[in-house]
Amino acid sequence: MAFEFPIRIYWEDTDAGGIVFYANYLKFFERARTEWLRALGVGQQILREREGGMFVVSETNVKYHSPARLDDELIVTAALKEAGRVTLNIEQRATLKSTGALLCQGSIRIGWVDAQTLRPARIPAAIIDQLNSETAIDRLSSS
Amino acid sequence: MAFEFPIRIYWEDTDAGGIVFYANYLKFFERARTEWLRALGVGQQILREREGGMFVVSETNVKYHSPARLDDELIVTAALKEAGRVTLNIEQRATLKSTGALLCQGSIRIGWVDAQTLRPARIPAAIIDQLNSETAIDRLSSS
Amino acid sequence: MAFEFPIRIYWEDTDAGGIVFYANYLKFFERARTEWLRALGVGQQILREREGGMFVVSETNVKYHSPARLDDELIVTAALKEAGRVTLNIEQRATLKSTGALLCQGSIRIGWVDAQTLRPARIPAAIIDQLNSETAIDRLSSS
Amino acid sequence: MAFEFPIRIYWEDTDAGGIVFYANYLKFFERARTEWLRALGVGQQILREREGGMFVVSETNVKYHSPARLDDELIVTAALKEAGRVTLNIEQRATLKSTGALLCQGSIRIGWVDAQTLRPARIPAAIIDQLNSETAIDRLSSS
Repeated sequence: MAFEFPIRIYWEDTDAGGIVFYANYLKFFERARTEWLRALGVGQQILREREGGMFVVSETNVKYHSPARLDDELIVTAALKEAGRVTLNIEQRATLKSTGALLCQGSIRIGWVDAQTLRPARIPAAIIDQLNSETAIDRLSSS
Repeated sequence: MAFEFPIRIYWEDTDAGGIVFYANYLKFFERARTEWLRALGVGQQILREREGGMFVVSETNVKYHSPARLDDELIVTAALKEAGRVTLNIEQRATLKSTGALLCQGSIRIGWVDAQTLRPARIPAAIIDQLNSETAIDRLSSS
Repeated sequence: MAFEFPIRIYWEDTDAGGIVFYANYLKFFERARTEWLRALGVGQQILREREGGMFVVSETNVKYHSPARLDDELIVTAALKEAGRVTLNIEQRATLKSTGALLCQGSIRIGWVDAQTLRPARIPAAIIDQLNSETAIDRLSSS
Repeated sequence: MAFEFPIRIYWEDTDAGGIVFYANYLKFFERARTEWLRALGVGQQILREREGGMFVVSETNVKYHSPARLDDELIVTAALKEAGRVTLNIEQRATLKSTGALLCQGSIRIGWVDAQTLRPARIPAAIIDQLNSETAIDRLSSS
């Protein structure tokens, strides 16, 4: 049921251990979240211009299970786990496309802030409505 | 006639100037080169295991014409400009998909090295043959 | 009592929100961990050659409290929280040097693996001894 | 006579080839340029607030001579080669501290732009004066 996004591993993603540098999974997770939001009609650049705010990441809890390597194809997922007034909690996973092996899983909390002051603010109703109207609806809870 | 590869701009690609951080175009160029080589049947991880060598970048000459921003879609191209025994010279461009505006263009020289010693070596004949057998043929020259 | 390492914010560290891209704190934490290990006499490149193994990150739990900006000076700390046979848990913080404000804090678990097979292995006794002989000693526990 | 800045190689800087990922030299060059400008009294964040403009990179020509590895210490230099009304051309080198071996050299052109419109503009006189009053003076020419 989660949104899925394919990601290919390039030289830029790897380190001298011969594997993907762990910090880069945060980038992969964000690409998948961004495309998930875009698929829900939520463009971040447009939101910033229209709403004067933006999402920022406030917490990341990530476990690295198995390494990925150059040229590997990953499937990265994003699923809304919890939606509050000021933050969303998103569950994400990266698996190896060829075997389905779990590489990395994370729980990412994002909050809405005013783009100028960077102060926390309520997530625009339009976004919450959009999230509600999609398949995401049964996973919404207050926080 | 050049190989084309689409690239989307994410937060990770931008800097505090509000635009894509210039060094990242080298990453975009490499993604496009990698997919171009893959399309020609040249997988880098496989080559390394089979041939014991790898491509390394020996020279990059890049001009940055116009900035890209968050959420932009780019088309990045790769075309073989020159093929010698030990290096290839590849011409690359990044344009904005929506307008075709030129964002960045570069000339990237890659050489073949032994993966263990990192010493320059002749590009495997199999790769040169592959490049020759493709549309690339008329652009080959000695260097 | 924690090890302290200064880090300056450059363009490469920021994103279009005008602040440090959150994933980069994992890089800052690693620089500080690396220097902390080096200060304890544990060089990672040397270890790899001598012991045939390396540290890999297995879990990162990070909270982002306040944003840093271009040109900011940070103090990043590393302190051993827990040392087991196969993993170390390290507590890390990034603060703004000028005000002491907490920017980011994280708990990073690193494990020892064989450099060839990437399989988990016991942390070399020499490293544990080194950690024991330093101020770290009172923070060691079994896990 | 060039400004020198030390840089240590961490995991984040390397790739699966076991060496520093070439695109990262652009980051190292920028850190050195930033510290060189800072040493000349030119703080970029302050300039942006006061002058409403910022430097952007318009051209990078880089040759990669020899690879650096994890834990290596580099010396990165910056020297003004040419100063025009709208651009500066800066010569940069990265060498291995232990041997002095040349790793990478580049010529980086930076231009001044309005921070809002990103349009090219004259470099503020205060910066040019600062560059003139320093040891840089004999290397200034018109362009």
